[in-house]
Amino acid sequence: MNKKVAVILSGCGVYDGSEIYESVITLLRLDQRGATVQCFAPDRPQLHVIDHRTGEETGESRNVLTEAARLARGQIKDLREADAADFDALIIPGGFGAAKNLSDFASKGAACQVQPDVLAVAQAFARSDKPIGMMCIAPTMAAQIFGPGVLCTLGHDDDPAAVAAREMGAVHKACEVSEIVEDTQRKLVTTPAYMLAQSISEAASGIYKLVDRVLDLTHAK
Amino acid sequence: MNKKVAVILSGCGVYDGSEIYESVITLLRLDQRGATVQCFAPDRPQLHVIDHRTGEETGESRNVLTEAARLARGQIKDLREADAADFDALIIPGGFGAAKNLSDFASKGAACQVQPDVLAVAQAFARSDKPIGMMCIAPTMAAQIFGPGVLCTLGHDDDPAAVAAREMGAVHKACEVSEIVEDTQRKLVTTPAYMLAQSISEAASGIYKLVDRVLDLTHAK
Repeated sequence: MNKKVAVILSGCGVYDGSEIYESVITLLRLDQRGATVQCFAPDRPQLHVIDHRTGEETGESRNVLTEAARLARGQIKDLREADAADFDALIIPGGFGAAKNLSDFASKGAACQVQPDVLAVAQAFARSDKPIGMMCIAPTMAAQIFGPGVLCTLGHDDDPAAVAAREMGAVHKACEVSEIVEDTQRKLVTTPAYMLAQSISEAASGIYKLVDRVLDLTHAK
Repeated sequence: MNKKVAVILSGCGVYDGSEIYESVITLLRLDQRGATVQCFAPDRPQLHVIDHRTGEETGESRNVLTEAARLARGQIKDLREADAADFDALIIPGGFGAAKNLSDFASKGAACQVQPDVLAVAQAFARSDKPIGMMCIAPTMAAQIFGPGVLCTLGHDDDPAAVAAREMGAVHKACEVSEIVEDTQRKLVTTPAYMLAQSISEAASGIYKLVDRVLDLTHAK
């Protein structure tokens, strides 16, 4: 098949960057399916650094791209180099980094802004009718990327993130951790992952389906 | 089945900690097989911090346990709390952290010493006849844990790590990335993982077999 997929990371660690399990499971499934992957991340400071033992801020400063490089074994590029024309699809894993470093949803909720560089890249994929997969908290960016009416999931309907997504104009659909939600018109595929997952294999069940469906959609016209 | 497995991590990132893909694939497979996992790491400074974009030392100081907590979504314990009596098996993923923070193999080669806390925990598993899985560079600790004659793999026979392992008393067996080597007497299972892997799915192929075999060995008498 040899589809090319861009993956946007937001650091390395669930509380201040990309959720590690979601990211690795995404990369594993893409590779198992024969896709070629290029990871990207924005070259700027993280919102903050969280000690993952204690949950407290450490006061350190770390760079999103530098930390995300850990998740890519060094094979990562500055998000500024991402060109939708070079790829067949885009996937954005979750983790608080998606809501702290790719947008400011974690602090602003429904009044958030997706970072302009992230928005530009994602909208270029959307305009080119190329599928996008987003998991966990990342679909809080969907309304700004695709506009009102976009269909996505953040897990349970009454989750504060789902409430905020509706406030921003998204149509939220509740979804089990092992399933996906697809906006067929916009080619957006979402899955709750660690919005709901109680274990790594639960997260994997939905992420595998998301990756498979995103790759299938690269063939759709 | 509900077997309990201890996993010793050494940080978070291939160049200064645990190899992230190896660690996550191990945790995924253990969970898929119904095992209960507890991650541990030593509470001490990393040897150093490597910028995974550039490969250069950053001059920062980070704690092994604190960074490894990222790989465990915070669910990790100090290695001092690890008691072999509480578990059915032990697995140690690779990454340079295994040769920098669990032993000093990365700087000392065949003259290395496994850190006393790591050695004590691993030898307690070995003495209790409980299986141990080690991948990538981690089997460079096998000779000190099990004594001379232990059978393990580090990938190719002429790899400097394999040469050093033989010098330390191990019997090295060459092994493909998709396969495992088992010391049946000592219940040690090893696989090359990123000593040889060219892709994440290649690494997964051997790691899945390692995890499955380690779990099988928890039933063996």
